[in-house]
Amino acid sequence: MSYTRTCEIPGITVAGANPDMLKFTPPADAEFIRYGRCRCIDAIPMTPDGKPTPALFTRVALNAADIPFVAIDAGGVIEPQMPFIQTGLKPGGDISREPAMSKPSLLRAIEYGKATGQMLAPLTDCLVIGESLPGGTTTAQAVMRGLGIDARSSSSMPKNPVSLKEKVAAAALDRLHSSDPQDIISQLADPMIPFVAGMLSSASRTARVMLAGGTQMAAVLAVARSLNLGIRSTAIGTTRYITDDRTANLLDMADVPVLAVDPGVSGSHIGGLRAFSEGFAKEGAGAGGSMISAVLKAGITTSRLRTLAEAEYARIST
Amino acid sequence: MSYTRTCEIPGITVAGANPDMLKFTPPADAEFIRYGRCRCIDAIPMTPDGKPTPALFTRVALNAADIPFVAIDAGGVIEPQMPFIQTGLKPGGDISREPAMSKPSLLRAIEYGKATGQMLAPLTDCLVIGESLPGGTTTAQAVMRGLGIDARSSSSMPKNPVSLKEKVAAAALDRLHSSDPQDIISQLADPMIPFVAGMLSSASRTARVMLAGGTQMAAVLAVARSLNLGIRSTAIGTTRYITDDRTANLLDMADVPVLAVDPGVSGSHIGGLRAFSEGFAKEGAGAGGSMISAVLKAGITTSRLRTLAEAEYARIST
Repeated sequence: MSYTRTCEIPGITVAGANPDMLKFTPPADAEFIRYGRCRCIDAIPMTPDGKPTPALFTRVALNAADIPFVAIDAGGVIEPQMPFIQTGLKPGGDISREPAMSKPSLLRAIEYGKATGQMLAPLTDCLVIGESLPGGTTTAQAVMRGLGIDARSSSSMPKNPVSLKEKVAAAALDRLHSSDPQDIISQLADPMIPFVAGMLSSASRTARVMLAGGTQMAAVLAVARSLNLGIRSTAIGTTRYITDDRTANLLDMADVPVLAVDPGVSGSHIGGLRAFSEGFAKEGAGAGGSMISAVLKAGITTSRLRTLAEAEYARIST
Repeated sequence: MSYTRTCEIPGITVAGANPDMLKFTPPADAEFIRYGRCRCIDAIPMTPDGKPTPALFTRVALNAADIPFVAIDAGGVIEPQMPFIQTGLKPGGDISREPAMSKPSLLRAIEYGKATGQMLAPLTDCLVIGESLPGGTTTAQAVMRGLGIDARSSSSMPKNPVSLKEKVAAAALDRLHSSDPQDIISQLADPMIPFVAGMLSSASRTARVMLAGGTQMAAVLAVARSLNLGIRSTAIGTTRYITDDRTANLLDMADVPVLAVDPGVSGSHIGGLRAFSEGFAKEGAGAGGSMISAVLKAGITTSRLRTLAEAEYARIST
């Protein structure tokens, strides 16, 4: 769970019904995964026209395969109403007009990430790390540009606001007068990116790590490399809606294996789920990585996961 | 990590060098276990005459046997400067003059305890739960009295302030005009007790649970029983300095197996460690349960643990 004020730029994200609600999206996702309902908001996690949070897939996959779930606050605004790991990190700034974070905040994010990875890795053979962070593909794209990577990010919206993202990245890059990775990350990232980079560096020493997401996890990798954090056994796990996205280039950006799962909802009778195959959200809250983990851990088929997702959709809609 | 304002009654506890420091004791213990030094206070966790926190034994045992460690805030005042599980519970009141907590706070403590147990139990085959809570034996004794158990608690001080504890318990019991366990616990306990009772009830369904402590863990058991929370595979793990304590009666109070370990410091050349065998602290921060776990998990001998504790003492003293 994290936050960047960059998401408040009109048109950047689909997450959250309105700007005031954006900061509730990450804790609402965590509560939904844990309890099957939100607590910090009195609503079902769905757009008015019936498109649910991708956390629906996450919840279904984790439950089907009995995969433990731990929520981490790494720069969120609102705390979830459930036990969670607290790091005390502050939300990130709107990178179109201010630094994402100070240098000390960056170092703290990395250090707390390392400590969290060290804490969690011994408890599992594979640590799957997802994110819920509105506006996160914009900061991911900007920080990769800053690091000299040709990054075209996916979007949570069917029509990827490519030129808006480019404008934000350009405004942020204009402020940058340094090639030091720490300066680049402080100016252009969000708190999740260096935090997960830190987690990755310590956790991948003792466990396998799957970064569950698309562009944002490519940015985590790029940041970890730029800081020489040291990465071992690591893969990215996501949905095919990300790897198929022609407006983005995840497979070019990632220098680790990418696993992609087909959630299979293109043939669903439920329009709100079918929307994921039509470009809505595509991924988020670790959905793709969780489905891959359910397949690998418990041999659950993707068509079974689709059936379970449809049942879960029916449950929350009634 | 928890807190009860009961610890501010003069003469109740040895934890913390002075009253203002008491609230730093739990996070300082957690930081010491994690990092080998405190961060929230600029001091080594030792009394002025060289007696260290029992967390020294905890740290040594966990490290020697590679046992993962997760810190939980359940009603603390000061947050530790490290990642930890946040529950949002409030500190407990001074039971000599006010309720320990409101009824909604009690229900929240139990519920968050259950959720935390559910989160952690799948990650291990044996969940060892310790506490760091100044004044905790006084509230433990009071709540057991309230529940009709003849409880004589151990103390962190060589001369157990028995009559002072009795006075506090009597004052608290005077306020009580109900035999409903929820009323009794709200009036007389501390936030740790119902929280750990909740953890125990959910975690013991999927993992073994070792309650690491003396009197305070007997109170957890008594509270869990009184609320019919349902307890399965559970034991208490502590030091022989608790089970040998003639001013207390842990073996009478506990209705589960009690494992006791001899830290062996009665023969230590270091006075600050020998003090534990002479009645100082005796237990705390899960020390006994951690040593037992190191023996059971990795076959480490208690004499090896003593040698490691002496080396750790030397490290922090220089």
